[in-house]
Amino acid sequence: MPELRRDPLSGRWAIIAAERARRPQDFARRQPPIEAGPGACPFCEGHERETPPEVLAYRQEGSSPDSPGWRLRVVPNLYPALGPAEGEMAPRRQGLSEALPAVGAHEVVIIRPEHVEVPAQLGEDDLRRLVRAFIARHQTHAANPQVGYVHATMNYGREAGASREHLHAQLFALPLVPTLVEQELARCEEHYAACGRCLVCDLLAQELESGARVVWQDERMALFAPFAPRAPFEVWLAPRHHRASFAAMDEGELGSFASGLRQALLRLHHRLGDPPFNFWLHTAPTSRDVGSFYHWHLELQPKLAIAAGFELGTDIIINTIAPESAAVFLREIGVQG
Amino acid sequence: MPELRRDPLSGRWAIIAAERARRPQDFARRQPPIEAGPGACPFCEGHERETPPEVLAYRQEGSSPDSPGWRLRVVPNLYPALGPAEGEMAPRRQGLSEALPAVGAHEVVIIRPEHVEVPAQLGEDDLRRLVRAFIARHQTHAANPQVGYVHATMNYGREAGASREHLHAQLFALPLVPTLVEQELARCEEHYAACGRCLVCDLLAQELESGARVVWQDERMALFAPFAPRAPFEVWLAPRHHRASFAAMDEGELGSFASGLRQALLRLHHRLGDPPFNFWLHTAPTSRDVGSFYHWHLELQPKLAIAAGFELGTDIIINTIAPESAAVFLREIGVQG
Repeated sequence: MPELRRDPLSGRWAIIAAERARRPQDFARRQPPIEAGPGACPFCEGHERETPPEVLAYRQEGSSPDSPGWRLRVVPNLYPALGPAEGEMAPRRQGLSEALPAVGAHEVVIIRPEHVEVPAQLGEDDLRRLVRAFIARHQTHAANPQVGYVHATMNYGREAGASREHLHAQLFALPLVPTLVEQELARCEEHYAACGRCLVCDLLAQELESGARVVWQDERMALFAPFAPRAPFEVWLAPRHHRASFAAMDEGELGSFASGLRQALLRLHHRLGDPPFNFWLHTAPTSRDVGSFYHWHLELQPKLAIAAGFELGTDIIINTIAPESAAVFLREIGVQG
Repeated sequence: MPELRRDPLSGRWAIIAAERARRPQDFARRQPPIEAGPGACPFCEGHERETPPEVLAYRQEGSSPDSPGWRLRVVPNLYPALGPAEGEMAPRRQGLSEALPAVGAHEVVIIRPEHVEVPAQLGEDDLRRLVRAFIARHQTHAANPQVGYVHATMNYGREAGASREHLHAQLFALPLVPTLVEQELARCEEHYAACGRCLVCDLLAQELESGARVVWQDERMALFAPFAPRAPFEVWLAPRHHRASFAAMDEGELGSFASGLRQALLRLHHRLGDPPFNFWLHTAPTSRDVGSFYHWHLELQPKLAIAAGFELGTDIIINTIAPESAAVFLREIGVQG
């Protein structure tokens, strides 16, 4: 079973998942993971038996689980970083060392049955379906009292850590709230205590008033470059009305969110030559009520720079493009929504 | 002038250094930076005029600055992420946004005059000279009241962010204490307040008693895999006796530190096939006294995995090799010191 370990010095967490691993000597080779071509891809329609059984699918009426006839499938990851509880589940403390069993879930969302390789080819209907799947699985995991947080993310391109080219996203159900979300929660709670308002609501008001970093907006969602971006051309997509959990969004927001995400994907594709990227949601924990002061959003970082010894050792990023310039650059294209 | 910006939501810092940048459209190309071969390398002996004037060099008696006859040179980075104060230096606050001029220094340490490309070829004398240069520049920057912290680091290999193959390290003088060091300081101060002992001293005692994660040690230094490593085969090198700042190490420690670093470099080279890596020092800030509770150390991370949407969005790392296995693997070789 993988283990969540806390570094005694920095307080940061790592999941030790040796089940996913190669043997130590395999690290020496560093060849890219083996990628099946479209014909042998286990994510393609017709290859359903090559993945673990599906936990969710949007499929034609009358089609059977784990057979063709679907538009989107969610399956457990074959080498999960977090898994169901087994046997003795107590935290482990040895002197200064703190560890927890990595109880939870690790799932793959196969976004389309065809071997589509480029995110800019995803339509709004594909993205709406993806968001619906995120929400449905979030709700399932949220009902489990052992789960503290559900992390939804997508990696595109080898340089961004994707090990298969067939477009997919991932969901992680975690027994704790991630370090980064805890940091945001603390700052949001502090701001709320000081002035009775949501920090992200105030931030959005500031961004929309200035407009300098806004890339796209409609009446429900805003896409903008954050003030202190951690990657060149990083963008955030957030609901303009206060809402703590993305799983609580209504139909109108869902449509606007899919439009905003499509705008981001198309602009990156056309302006930056289809770069590798990662996106993820930051949302309310499932384990406590932060409804008054937290506000969900999506963060998207193209992988155009390498974190080196400065970034890794300080947690300060050197970004060679100002977000104001990035926003101008990404705005300078009309994209049909 | 580059600017240090704090993200209003997470509280983390980014340096916006557009002077280092390509134009926005240049990001679309993503070709590797241009690398001069040995004949045209500006870091090689005989090419001293191709770098900014040296700020430190260990050279033959009678040789002139910025000419041949040196063993190690320190020069300002041509595209610095931090620079000397110029004009109006006030912090900038706009609503929720907080920014500081990125006052400081950014220097390159050219470790050898020859175009050596593999760190395992560095001898202990080279590494001792490197450490002496780190200390000398640290002391110079520490005398500047605008400097809060000096970050010393080395990147090896393109995948680890090195833009030149001629072996070099870097020094950054910062106006603030990095996020990550602040986090360590807070935990160390809390531990000291609770029990009157240094957290790293206690950690070292625990590691050396168990031995499960120790790779190498002598009477002054210990090389070990940390309990919750953030990279496969991450190792830390720390003095066994309490010392807050690496700049305060004595001659014996300097020799042991160079031996320990060489042990790490040789073992990575032989066991993992010369992997790309980053290392950096975590040490006491220059701006305040943490002598009783902080303890300097070196952290070294081979670049054998990619931080993807899980790691970037949570700050939790998925590590597929347990540090106990990594330590066994790295111990299993006799290396002449």
